[in-house]
Amino acid sequence: MEPIYLDHNATTPLAAEVSKAISDALDLWGNPSSLYEKGKMAKNAISKAREQIASMINSHPSEIVFCSGGTEANNNVIWSVLESFDKWKESTGDKHILAHVITTSVEHVAVERPLKYWQDKGRLEVTFVPVDPSTGAVTVDAIMHAFRPTTVLISIIMANNETGVIMPILEIGRALDKYRQERKSSSRLPLFFHTDAAQGIGKIKVDVKELNVDFLVIVGHKFYGPRIGALYVRSLDNDVEYYPMLFGGGQERGYRSGTENTPMIVGLGQAAEIVIKNLAADQNHFRLCRDELECCLEKLFGDSILFNLRVGNRLPNTSSVCISRDGIYNGHELLSRCPFVCASTGSACHSGSKPSAVLIASGLSEEKARSTLRLTVGRSTRLEDVRKAAEAIKKAYDSMTCS
Amino acid sequence: MEPIYLDHNATTPLAAEVSKAISDALDLWGNPSSLYEKGKMAKNAISKAREQIASMINSHPSEIVFCSGGTEANNNVIWSVLESFDKWKESTGDKHILAHVITTSVEHVAVERPLKYWQDKGRLEVTFVPVDPSTGAVTVDAIMHAFRPTTVLISIIMANNETGVIMPILEIGRALDKYRQERKSSSRLPLFFHTDAAQGIGKIKVDVKELNVDFLVIVGHKFYGPRIGALYVRSLDNDVEYYPMLFGGGQERGYRSGTENTPMIVGLGQAAEIVIKNLAADQNHFRLCRDELECCLEKLFGDSILFNLRVGNRLPNTSSVCISRDGIYNGHELLSRCPFVCASTGSACHSGSKPSAVLIASGLSEEKARSTLRLTVGRSTRLEDVRKAAEAIKKAYDSMTCS
Repeated sequence: MEPIYLDHNATTPLAAEVSKAISDALDLWGNPSSLYEKGKMAKNAISKAREQIASMINSHPSEIVFCSGGTEANNNVIWSVLESFDKWKESTGDKHILAHVITTSVEHVAVERPLKYWQDKGRLEVTFVPVDPSTGAVTVDAIMHAFRPTTVLISIIMANNETGVIMPILEIGRALDKYRQERKSSSRLPLFFHTDAAQGIGKIKVDVKELNVDFLVIVGHKFYGPRIGALYVRSLDNDVEYYPMLFGGGQERGYRSGTENTPMIVGLGQAAEIVIKNLAADQNHFRLCRDELECCLEKLFGDSILFNLRVGNRLPNTSSVCISRDGIYNGHELLSRCPFVCASTGSACHSGSKPSAVLIASGLSEEKARSTLRLTVGRSTRLEDVRKAAEAIKKAYDSMTCS
Repeated sequence: MEPIYLDHNATTPLAAEVSKAISDALDLWGNPSSLYEKGKMAKNAISKAREQIASMINSHPSEIVFCSGGTEANNNVIWSVLESFDKWKESTGDKHILAHVITTSVEHVAVERPLKYWQDKGRLEVTFVPVDPSTGAVTVDAIMHAFRPTTVLISIIMANNETGVIMPILEIGRALDKYRQERKSSSRLPLFFHTDAAQGIGKIKVDVKELNVDFLVIVGHKFYGPRIGALYVRSLDNDVEYYPMLFGGGQERGYRSGTENTPMIVGLGQAAEIVIKNLAADQNHFRLCRDELECCLEKLFGDSILFNLRVGNRLPNTSSVCISRDGIYNGHELLSRCPFVCASTGSACHSGSKPSAVLIASGLSEEKARSTLRLTVGRSTRLEDVRKAAEAIKKAYDSMTCS
């Protein structure tokens, strides 16, 4: 049987146009810093991709920094904020003040782990704001409640990769405005608002002007693009300070050294182009397939299935389902019994046997987290695929019940 | 006229086999961390590439960490050494001791700049050992003379990208053995030996067992591979400590988080495969073309040409030539008058108008540095290409003389 891929939050295939763009751009091998034609051609291709990425999120090309991926971008944002804080601290002469960061308890590890690293190093304090267990989302109030005079960074995942829950980025941004104004006129301590939009791009509308974020992380392989990323920095050079963590040849206007990965950058631009054109249609298609999947599962499983956090604002492609009776079923075991259904129990980075920390932080019991499957549809998913997948999962479940 | 590419130290085209390998591997889009077949296929492809890279430098696959490129790898080595030093310092209880690093005055900026950054931050002291102006190379004695009880890192470029001068890595490694033994038995302060082999790989034999280095940086686009890199760490996990600077999903056994760029990694492996097979033939071809180029230039320019640092151990593909009479010629202007000769005056990262700092540090006067061209041949260079290029440069030079 042909595999049915229902793990689009782990990674997406390359769109055919993106594959072609990358393959074609392998010829653009000139060093973009070189002054002759071959170099200029590569440079121009990168400029075009920068415009495409900027356009996708309603920003300006000068606000885009290409980098190796979401992990690097998120790590660099935190690094940069620490640099800004250090410079501010130097200007005040107060050596003992410690930077404070507000984040959620359900961040991707590429935000959580660097924050914990710097916390362990004694360079910052972090408040991990728990999500409301009834929705899986943080509330604006809970975030604002954590605010301190020393808060320099609020970092909130746009949509959780495992639960699909969308966070109130827009509302948090609005609530922050007051503090931003205050800071500017009083302490002048910088205050940054960052969102890891890895799971948002290509699935929901992402408009940086509306969101009013300072940093936004873009990850190619989550929206049918290549395995690189880009960082949006609001009014880079003029308003928001940004400091590189990689030092070298000064590429990307000094914000990200390293000879540019031209073909992948071109592919990223192409992937953005497709999102610009197809987002609305994609969203409808995702929702249709995901809802059909949930409907089929509901029919097949009846009382044995629970849809985690289906109440609030969710990504249109994501279903987090807990299949269990008397708590004896394990998601990993279930999936291993229907190998042609490509899905996961949590984020791909943690395909181990432990129950997902994000699910537990989202309010699920350990038992429920262990019985949860993450099923995420994509552009190529067909209605018959999700029906077949639901049946295969039921069959696998029955085989476990009987054995 | 067809452009003649003589800037292979800036970047190389992709080998046809590498292009094909990358294009084919665009289909390996599964997340290598996923447990189903698509994920495993990607994981296996990465394992194969790791074996190829390891084999190219006579190391073990477990000693290879893939990353986004040379800049990241070099930055991470320095970061890691600082982490090791901090851990050692904690164990001694001495808060005021400062790490010391020995490097050369002709490093690539991806080593020089992070070192200067950490020096400015007060985290380490650096001795930039000048090269012998008669050879452009550092001497073992000069490096050892800089050694201090607090030296934790010796970082020496394998071969300079601008002059092509090869550094005595083997000899420095041997001379360090004594200090390594001493450290192990007395202070236990770690001591690391690192080389940025960006320009060495694919042009000269690189065998980590012979060289006895702890860290070695590999950069794909300098040897007909893609724009990613890899780091060799000697006996990673067992002997040499290595700490990541990017935190996240724990890919690359925790040493480099971020979803793996499978197609580019596969391409890097393929590029290594070609180096393994063709190094000897490539070297002969490079030398033949480079020598022919120098011979033609000599005939055409007579007294008006000087070959910089031609006396010692040079990369077989690199010619650093100073074309000047009465110091009135500028390399940039000269190149702009023969646009179909693709070459540079220094490293691609610095294609500005200032004379190259590396050339000046290599003992050239500012005037000579300003009049220098870097001409670097490659696999596809033909003898007729270098002859034509020499003639074109002469014609451009004459046009400057007349005007």
